[in-house]
Amino acid sequence: MNIKIEKLIKQFAKLPRVGTRAATRIVIGLLQDKTGRAESLANALLDASKSIHPCHQCGVLTDADFCEYCSDDARKNGQLCIVRDLSDVLVLEKSGVFHGRYHVLGAMLSGVNGITPEDLNVANISSRILNENISEIIFALPNTVEGKTTQQYIISSINNTNVSFSELASGVPLGGDLDYIDDGTLTLAFGGRKKL
Amino acid sequence: MNIKIEKLIKQFAKLPRVGTRAATRIVIGLLQDKTGRAESLANALLDASKSIHPCHQCGVLTDADFCEYCSDDARKNGQLCIVRDLSDVLVLEKSGVFHGRYHVLGAMLSGVNGITPEDLNVANISSRILNENISEIIFALPNTVEGKTTQQYIISSINNTNVSFSELASGVPLGGDLDYIDDGTLTLAFGGRKKL
Repeated sequence: MNIKIEKLIKQFAKLPRVGTRAATRIVIGLLQDKTGRAESLANALLDASKSIHPCHQCGVLTDADFCEYCSDDARKNGQLCIVRDLSDVLVLEKSGVFHGRYHVLGAMLSGVNGITPEDLNVANISSRILNENISEIIFALPNTVEGKTTQQYIISSINNTNVSFSELASGVPLGGDLDYIDDGTLTLAFGGRKKL
Repeated sequence: MNIKIEKLIKQFAKLPRVGTRAATRIVIGLLQDKTGRAESLANALLDASKSIHPCHQCGVLTDADFCEYCSDDARKNGQLCIVRDLSDVLVLEKSGVFHGRYHVLGAMLSGVNGITPEDLNVANISSRILNENISEIIFALPNTVEGKTTQQYIISSINNTNVSFSELASGVPLGGDLDYIDDGTLTLAFGGRKKL
């Protein structure tokens, strides 16, 4: 194979959820396209990589000083939802379940991967609680050991008695068939069973 | 969501085998990466889209006048394998089953999609047969109505009695369980059964 095409396929194959086979299809599709899709994609990517950066306050990617959520005063409702990354924000926004402000950590604490508190966007959480009158912090982190460790770390680092903490409920997903649910989820669902 | 990020996700989502969900992950992953992967990918794509073009002889993507297969005299063995696109060439090369020259059509004839012979890279097949002493044309096209139509069209357009035509065998794949094979394949496998 041509060396330039091979290099390009390797770069695409490193993207999340793209393997070598899909990367090959993508690259060939782009290079065979006669409408200039390859150039337009490359230029959009260059433009975004130059202008997009994390919001100074919450970490959501934006091309402004403050993101759309931090600059919206209607969202200053006392609730702060702590998530891992922007895709979690998008999922929550799509569901329409939350109307407060976000805080994006960027990663989860992980001894195995060498992720320490310095790698997380946590430095300004305490000042945000004061400046934005936060009364409730809602953790919407992955339901994993890393997620729980990160959550515990943040709770222990906040010395503010006026703020309450909550986390998303664990249990059987809507429409979830018990056959297909792992033991850990079942244990959590049993432990948290609701009296009817 | 930020409009620039949204546009970028839409462009990625249009790529083959990438949906909106994967595109979102890809774009966020690229923009959050601090090692400059977004820029390096964009630049590699720009470079390739400027320098890569179809080989003047066979249609394989290359950055030279003639591709690696057409410029390799050892491959001038009298066999010409006709395929739909470069990914088929890569699959055949990986298998090591073919050592001749290729001819990439770029598309299949399709009434539904309005693909006519003018859209196919077929104009120079007859001259290639003469110039490269082709004695056998092997069709390795998709085993679909479009593939068979395209094959028939090419055979009927070649007025050369010194060249023979063949196509890949149809049948049960290696390791294929009859339970999982469609009726069409079974019919072809029955019709082409081999005496033992």
